[in-house]
Amino acid sequence: MLDLVSYMEKNVESIGDRSIEMHRKAGGKIGISLNVPLSSIDDLSLAYTPGVGAVCEAIHKNPDELRALTVSGNAVAVVTDGSAVLGLGDIGPRAAMPVMEGKCALFKVLVGIDAWPICLDAREPDEIVAAIRAIAPGFAGINIEDISAPRCFEIEERLQDLGIPVMHDDQHGTAIVLLAGLLNAVKATGKDFSSLRVVISGAGAAGRAIVRLLRCINLEPGVCTMVGEVIVCDSKGAIHKGRTDLGSVKKAILAYSNPNDKSGSLREILAGADVFIGVSKAGLLTSDDVRTMAPDPIVFALANPIPEIMPDEALAGGAALVATGRSDFPNQVNNVLAFPGIFRGAIDARAPRITDRMKLVTAKAIADSVPEPTPEHILPSALSLEVAAAVAAAVRQAAIDEKSE
Amino acid sequence: MLDLVSYMEKNVESIGDRSIEMHRKAGGKIGISLNVPLSSIDDLSLAYTPGVGAVCEAIHKNPDELRALTVSGNAVAVVTDGSAVLGLGDIGPRAAMPVMEGKCALFKVLVGIDAWPICLDAREPDEIVAAIRAIAPGFAGINIEDISAPRCFEIEERLQDLGIPVMHDDQHGTAIVLLAGLLNAVKATGKDFSSLRVVISGAGAAGRAIVRLLRCINLEPGVCTMVGEVIVCDSKGAIHKGRTDLGSVKKAILAYSNPNDKSGSLREILAGADVFIGVSKAGLLTSDDVRTMAPDPIVFALANPIPEIMPDEALAGGAALVATGRSDFPNQVNNVLAFPGIFRGAIDARAPRITDRMKLVTAKAIADSVPEPTPEHILPSALSLEVAAAVAAAVRQAAIDEKSE
Repeated sequence: MLDLVSYMEKNVESIGDRSIEMHRKAGGKIGISLNVPLSSIDDLSLAYTPGVGAVCEAIHKNPDELRALTVSGNAVAVVTDGSAVLGLGDIGPRAAMPVMEGKCALFKVLVGIDAWPICLDAREPDEIVAAIRAIAPGFAGINIEDISAPRCFEIEERLQDLGIPVMHDDQHGTAIVLLAGLLNAVKATGKDFSSLRVVISGAGAAGRAIVRLLRCINLEPGVCTMVGEVIVCDSKGAIHKGRTDLGSVKKAILAYSNPNDKSGSLREILAGADVFIGVSKAGLLTSDDVRTMAPDPIVFALANPIPEIMPDEALAGGAALVATGRSDFPNQVNNVLAFPGIFRGAIDARAPRITDRMKLVTAKAIADSVPEPTPEHILPSALSLEVAAAVAAAVRQAAIDEKSE
Repeated sequence: MLDLVSYMEKNVESIGDRSIEMHRKAGGKIGISLNVPLSSIDDLSLAYTPGVGAVCEAIHKNPDELRALTVSGNAVAVVTDGSAVLGLGDIGPRAAMPVMEGKCALFKVLVGIDAWPICLDAREPDEIVAAIRAIAPGFAGINIEDISAPRCFEIEERLQDLGIPVMHDDQHGTAIVLLAGLLNAVKATGKDFSSLRVVISGAGAAGRAIVRLLRCINLEPGVCTMVGEVIVCDSKGAIHKGRTDLGSVKKAILAYSNPNDKSGSLREILAGADVFIGVSKAGLLTSDDVRTMAPDPIVFALANPIPEIMPDEALAGGAALVATGRSDFPNQVNNVLAFPGIFRGAIDARAPRITDRMKLVTAKAIADSVPEPTPEHILPSALSLEVAAAVAAAVRQAAIDEKSE
């Protein structure tokens, strides 16, 4: 395995060098463009003073006009404090900027949203919440990004009354695309979704959102279509009632998971499981571990850039299907499939928040975009305009349905 | 006069209607553009994960790289709380958005700066200062806009330690362009700058900055080239030591003005003055008032959209030269001449703040762009790319000189 890992690290390094070169040449990936002419004094009198005064007055009289007459109706803030950036951890708001800018570029390319990166020099939840509340008038949505757990949970929750969609993508984006992948993995391997035994490695932002989506929310209202059992493991093994070292977030996870209160290491818990979902760290599993799972197991090894187990090792251990977070292996679980369409749909419907139903219809729309899933193809390409449009349409409809209920 | 005013109001109204129509059609004046390709999985791996991780690490190791590798090196936040928007007053952050967006468009067109509007739902100086500090990492400069006096003074002052230029344009932009106009008005009318008697109507943000620039800062270091006398009037007449109703800002103005402690109404104070500068409100003066001034007086009637006195009336009263804030009369005093070049020059030199010297060189660069000033032509066109470039070069040089001192 070490050879493969070092090969991959080298490969990622060369991508890194090319990426730095590209960023230096471009001087930033995004910029401002103009939608109106501004080359004559007449242009100036319409776009700026004195004409713009009438536009201000129109919004002052009718606040709904804000969205129709300014960029704010199509604008999303991509907000971070830089405390949990990619696999790099707490590198601060400045070093987080390239990721935020990348998300803004993806918003534009995939769904035409004008997103701007907001990198906050703030650390306390109170400060971050206050800053986001302060800047909110100019935006139609807030994409929270790369803020570490458990602060991310509190921050997202406290902002749900803002009147515009506020979503922490590291939680929900990953969980939604994972669910889409799992729906198709079940089809591709002939398993029964509602009896799946699932083991999740990682109790951070993504882990919590995944267990919630798999265990709390029925795929069809009124019909039990949740997975059969989920056990979440952190670095000390299964999260169970007997543990005295659990913080409030892990205690909350317990409410949705491990109904039979099993204890043991990740390896022990994995024995007999149908699905492994890794949102933790590189190289946790071996082929032998996969061999202890139920027949034809499904492996989602999402640690980035080095997964919990390399696909060839998982397959050697008998895995029926492997998905990772990487673009150079089949079945990439990439948030890019979800967040642009979710915000597009929610903003178009003027939804005040992102709901569980919107998350579910997003997962289904992504899954449905692969008509005949196979073990090598459960998810569409991350840059698919069609998928982004399908997600947007589904979320928009869900928002309209929820408004009328 | 009333006929003319109602004609002008109607004219402004029709510009307003056209402006609303233009804004509705465009759905906002600015948007996001991409500087890099983003259509293949290879593009994605360079602009986003996994390649972007190396860019983050490069900035984490060397914070100077932030400006070279991301849009933040070319980005300015145009920040308001919407408390003093144009002549409309306190219309709030949402209704202020069209003005902020207009400034962002001007930044792009004139000097290539990528500016984004930040409309703050905050009112206390503490909150506004905290919000601006929080968002600062992603920007190379902060243009404060349309925040009411006296809060604007405190807010601007408290942010001077941020390490990037922070300028409240309503104060300094207006004062700088006014000074440029006055320098050329003196040339065009053959007056002596340093013996001018100046009366300012209006003790708000612009009035304070103007009196400071005219009376506190020598045009040539070491040489007394300030105007001879300035008296500032508010709605109650001259600001003088005997007044018991002065707040701290007006008391501060007293330190630079009215050395002989004259009292009286604006009309009384105006008698014998060489220059009238109005930054107050429509229709304050008549031809008869101008007749009481010194021979060949200079009139800057900058209230917008209706000036303190209409140009034809001022000329009928004997004015040698009239300037307004409007584009449909000669000699428009427009902030657009100053702020784009100031930020371009300061950012390019990585200046930590906007200094008095930068303001002076800006005024001179604008004045020098009109080689032979006449009473009908003391200022260049507001949309001149050449002026913006000349200002940027002058400010950049001033910043470099100040660093080496």
